[in-house]
Amino acid sequence: MASSGPQTKKHDNHSDHLVQPTNPNVAAMQEDVLYHFSLSTSTHDFPAMFGDVKFVCVGGSPTRMEAFAKYMAKELGLDHPGAEYPNICRGTDRYAMFKVGPVLSVSHGIGIPSTSIMLHELIKLLYHAHCSDVTVIRIGTSGGIGLKPGSVVITRQAVDASFKPVFEQVVLGKRVVQRTHLDEELAEELMQCALDLLEFPTVLGNTMCTSDFYEGQGRLDGALCSYTEKDKQKYLQAAHSAGICNIEMESSVLAAICGACSIPVAVVCVTLLNRLEGDQVSSPHEVLVEYQQRPQRLVSHFIKKRLAAAQNPLNL
Amino acid sequence: MASSGPQTKKHDNHSDHLVQPTNPNVAAMQEDVLYHFSLSTSTHDFPAMFGDVKFVCVGGSPTRMEAFAKYMAKELGLDHPGAEYPNICRGTDRYAMFKVGPVLSVSHGIGIPSTSIMLHELIKLLYHAHCSDVTVIRIGTSGGIGLKPGSVVITRQAVDASFKPVFEQVVLGKRVVQRTHLDEELAEELMQCALDLLEFPTVLGNTMCTSDFYEGQGRLDGALCSYTEKDKQKYLQAAHSAGICNIEMESSVLAAICGACSIPVAVVCVTLLNRLEGDQVSSPHEVLVEYQQRPQRLVSHFIKKRLAAAQNPLNL
Repeated sequence: MASSGPQTKKHDNHSDHLVQPTNPNVAAMQEDVLYHFSLSTSTHDFPAMFGDVKFVCVGGSPTRMEAFAKYMAKELGLDHPGAEYPNICRGTDRYAMFKVGPVLSVSHGIGIPSTSIMLHELIKLLYHAHCSDVTVIRIGTSGGIGLKPGSVVITRQAVDASFKPVFEQVVLGKRVVQRTHLDEELAEELMQCALDLLEFPTVLGNTMCTSDFYEGQGRLDGALCSYTEKDKQKYLQAAHSAGICNIEMESSVLAAICGACSIPVAVVCVTLLNRLEGDQVSSPHEVLVEYQQRPQRLVSHFIKKRLAAAQNPLNL
Repeated sequence: MASSGPQTKKHDNHSDHLVQPTNPNVAAMQEDVLYHFSLSTSTHDFPAMFGDVKFVCVGGSPTRMEAFAKYMAKELGLDHPGAEYPNICRGTDRYAMFKVGPVLSVSHGIGIPSTSIMLHELIKLLYHAHCSDVTVIRIGTSGGIGLKPGSVVITRQAVDASFKPVFEQVVLGKRVVQRTHLDEELAEELMQCALDLLEFPTVLGNTMCTSDFYEGQGRLDGALCSYTEKDKQKYLQAAHSAGICNIEMESSVLAAICGACSIPVAVVCVTLLNRLEGDQVSSPHEVLVEYQQRPQRLVSHFIKKRLAAAQNPLNL
């Protein structure tokens, strides 16, 4: 499914690609307060703190992103006795951020607006730190469509609730529609990593991004529900027919904002349930915890493979 | 601005109003897993845990909502030595919830989607607990328009980015537009509380709810910006002319969902900056902390006044 060794080629292609906001005002700012990170260019040395970041992994839950940082520290052999990975955003509880070598692990909360704020401030942070060749990957949870719970979906296209690969935003009171851009080669490379591991079922497929978990995803178990079970099944079956493998709440804004700034981005989510069979997330806690580790294991393998390829670019 | 003693009349009017989801499916569920609260009707005794709740205060930050619970414990004389107010949702980090007597304090994260999930699960929680006569109040932060930073805005109407009092949602792939319903009498009663206190400038006005903090609110300092300073000023001036006093990211979904379930709801937000003068939130930390306590002080006064009126309904 993946061509051999795309990681080496890809990495070379992106050499010296500095992260750059599309907003020209940012370069002219004397001070930039990243309010929701509780960081500022006048009080923190961004190049010293973040200059070597190459991988930014993001996910909804702060606890999960802290666990991922600790896991990466072990996987990269950086977990020395006494090593600590404190929350860089400890001045706020809006987001949490951890750094382990070239890996930054950041929480984004639930939904497009929360993720949008994090992305604006993240891209400015990477710019102020003069970062180059950065890859962004979301490691998240989702509801599957027609997949066994615990399956991992690597997103080919992030689509909206009408199954279109677009992200709609309101700017100065007017609707603006952008294409969603996920990196195809990166998705293939991640799929190859899943084939290397063979630890859990993994598919490449489309991901639907919604602005609500209940009515917005056709659930019958919310406080409000304005349709029948038949309507719901018809909608989910139509999504399934459109190649949609899972539903979550952040992929489209990630694809739109990173895409606009030419930052390669991917989405890797585990499915916690099969929505064709139900709405409630009711698997035992320990089962859900193991499911949530799957995207982490996949992305850890990807990062280690990329780092090994960078150290040995000719594959000698 | 408020008629005298509306709280007594209001409270009588709502007597025995049980909280009721509009979705009939909920009553038929054998078990209801409130996944994002890490609570379930099969493992928790909702009537015993929550049956006496009369006030639900919500806000974005979990730390702020914990501080509010502790503050309310002191204000209600419930802060006995050794009294603890543990996080009821400690099984998850998606939301935090604290209970102090009749007051439930819940975080909702940032933005409409995050708040929507919290509201669906909150309303089902209150229903399963057989709660009656519940009032919901958001105590939040916002950007002001033409107000001195630190001013508190009690929302008259929650409007969208086109200044209309509606909430648009996509259900089964189709756009659905609902009116936003905030409780007018409740807003007047809160304004009377501000006049009782006279501790900080407070206004009754419209609040614009957006799905983004940067481009969605006309900021010039995000990673992306597709308009000029002139366009921005024109938009904010038009908002000002439409009676909009502040901008935040949750009021419309609160007004739509609570309104649909006939739960009286209000929004009380402090303004952290004047958007006509800038975009960055750069006041000193201790100033912002004091600002954020203002809605808490106002709502605490309101709750104490309501409780006193309930104990002495004839105002003897």
